[in-house]
Amino acid sequence: MSMVTYKDSGVDISKNNLAKKRIGEHVRSTFSKNVLADFGAFGAMYSIGKTGMKDPVLVSSADGVGTKIKLASMSGMYDTVGQDLVNHCVNDILVMGAKPLFFLDYLAFSKAEPMVVEQIVKGVAAACKANGLSLIGGETAQMPGLYSPGDFDLAGFIVGILDRKNAVTGKEIRPGHAVIGIFSNGLQTNGYSLANKVFFDMAKMQLNDKPAGLGGQSIKEALMAIHPSYLKAVQAVMNARTGIKGMAHITGGGLVENIPRVLPKSCSAELDTRSWKVLPVFNMIETLGKVPKDDMYRTFNMGIGFVLVVDQKDEAKTMAAIRKAKFSCAKIGKIVKGGQQVLIR
Amino acid sequence: MSMVTYKDSGVDISKNNLAKKRIGEHVRSTFSKNVLADFGAFGAMYSIGKTGMKDPVLVSSADGVGTKIKLASMSGMYDTVGQDLVNHCVNDILVMGAKPLFFLDYLAFSKAEPMVVEQIVKGVAAACKANGLSLIGGETAQMPGLYSPGDFDLAGFIVGILDRKNAVTGKEIRPGHAVIGIFSNGLQTNGYSLANKVFFDMAKMQLNDKPAGLGGQSIKEALMAIHPSYLKAVQAVMNARTGIKGMAHITGGGLVENIPRVLPKSCSAELDTRSWKVLPVFNMIETLGKVPKDDMYRTFNMGIGFVLVVDQKDEAKTMAAIRKAKFSCAKIGKIVKGGQQVLIR
Repeated sequence: MSMVTYKDSGVDISKNNLAKKRIGEHVRSTFSKNVLADFGAFGAMYSIGKTGMKDPVLVSSADGVGTKIKLASMSGMYDTVGQDLVNHCVNDILVMGAKPLFFLDYLAFSKAEPMVVEQIVKGVAAACKANGLSLIGGETAQMPGLYSPGDFDLAGFIVGILDRKNAVTGKEIRPGHAVIGIFSNGLQTNGYSLANKVFFDMAKMQLNDKPAGLGGQSIKEALMAIHPSYLKAVQAVMNARTGIKGMAHITGGGLVENIPRVLPKSCSAELDTRSWKVLPVFNMIETLGKVPKDDMYRTFNMGIGFVLVVDQKDEAKTMAAIRKAKFSCAKIGKIVKGGQQVLIR
Repeated sequence: MSMVTYKDSGVDISKNNLAKKRIGEHVRSTFSKNVLADFGAFGAMYSIGKTGMKDPVLVSSADGVGTKIKLASMSGMYDTVGQDLVNHCVNDILVMGAKPLFFLDYLAFSKAEPMVVEQIVKGVAAACKANGLSLIGGETAQMPGLYSPGDFDLAGFIVGILDRKNAVTGKEIRPGHAVIGIFSNGLQTNGYSLANKVFFDMAKMQLNDKPAGLGGQSIKEALMAIHPSYLKAVQAVMNARTGIKGMAHITGGGLVENIPRVLPKSCSAELDTRSWKVLPVFNMIETLGKVPKDDMYRTFNMGIGFVLVVDQKDEAKTMAAIRKAKFSCAKIGKIVKGGQQVLIR
């Protein structure tokens, strides 16, 4: 039996420390004046002393990017999944009307390559900055034996804040209200297991293929499109003093399962699919995989990334504010009497 | 090319929904009156309106349980890793003196088995309750292709709170102060890649073997010992009105790398290894793997799970409080002039 060190067992502490050093600069660039402890402390300290709120409520969410992570490894594009992750989390707490405060990440590898870790965290930090979040902590774990060489997983945790009286809960949604959809640019972070199966296993396509159906985009470009943060669009609507009745982030489960999460028990949402253009990538997946329409709508966002419910009289003002913030949108339906369902017309 | 649904691609939404239902009960059992949104909302809402603090600071941490997770899969013991995770996170923010508020988890599988998910989350919820934490959110991700069948990963995220004037930062540590060590019961959550390699790959032992060196314990019992939460011990010291100068949670990097994280630049800690008993499991790993002493102390906690630095005059009072809270401890060393190092004597 020979001598064994921690490095021999697959965990290289010094290499991990180098990675930590590299990412320190990116991380610190996101710090607001509320961040009290420096990178490297056991716990990250964030001051909330002066919120100016009467009844401050923390809003938090944990998420991953699903099997989009496999595409990052396959394509060697490591700087975008961090943006996918942060934007996904921002949108989740935005649904309640929360302002993002801080973010922590969890990054797990078979063996951490400092350059790869740096690219990933650079993406996380860039998106944190863009959303006004401080990236105050995280964990980089080396887990040989759990992850295959080259594979990794990435999860994130966000904390935001709102004044309780301003929380958007969906309780005030009533029949007749308008459903406004903000357009997505791709799959966001959901449905990748199915998409990967259809494009790569069934259709035997390659990442760099540019099939006619994608209108000039490569499969890589279509699938790696960065999950947008809808923060600026929603802030614009709030600044326009429009009373937002409810919001939904269209994640796993699609429009069909996500809109009901904010509907009162006596309301349903009736959507007119002719009111927006389904993105080409979804049409290709449906055709190539012969995926049933119902499965498509339960798996993918189909081109609508985020939904707002507003009073009918605020419809035009809401859409004008969203467009001014440089997002595309449409009225995609209306609220009707019902039982917390989405009716696709 | 045949028809494919999301279920065929390895992601079974209905099974995942069943798992979510099962865990709901465990999750809700942890809710304090501060939890505003119910399980299933996009973001979890936690009211911090009435802290009674002058300058409230949030303290947060993200962590995993490392390759201890592989042992959970190997042994089929799914209800303890959640406790490892929560207790690890509690200890990390306890270092600053923070009171735990809420917790979120991230659980990733190849394919979620509802019974396994329930066992894992049951453990997370049990530890949350024991530490006064509300388990307010989380993500259960099915990622076929990233995780091998049966494998999973688990990460957690904690938020606690403290009044800024009470933050324990280590800044007041001075030469002459006493270093008190609270005893651990095993590896906690660090060094499993090395331990697994030594016991299973090199020594070809089995989980249920009871080698003489472990004093009656099986390898499974020794390695799966639950990472303790030191919250009650530290609370007891605080209640005894002892001025704690600094604390360290002994995680990856061992005593050698974790104590310096709270030392001022001009101080070192001198530890006398004769002052505590190294746990049998560490002696076995050292002997079987012929692991150099230095590597042992940089990888494992060696029997000391948590460290407090107090004024010499508070030494006895501190240890009495810890013992009254039913933890074992010893004075393991003292602070000396130096350069942020740990000197092992």
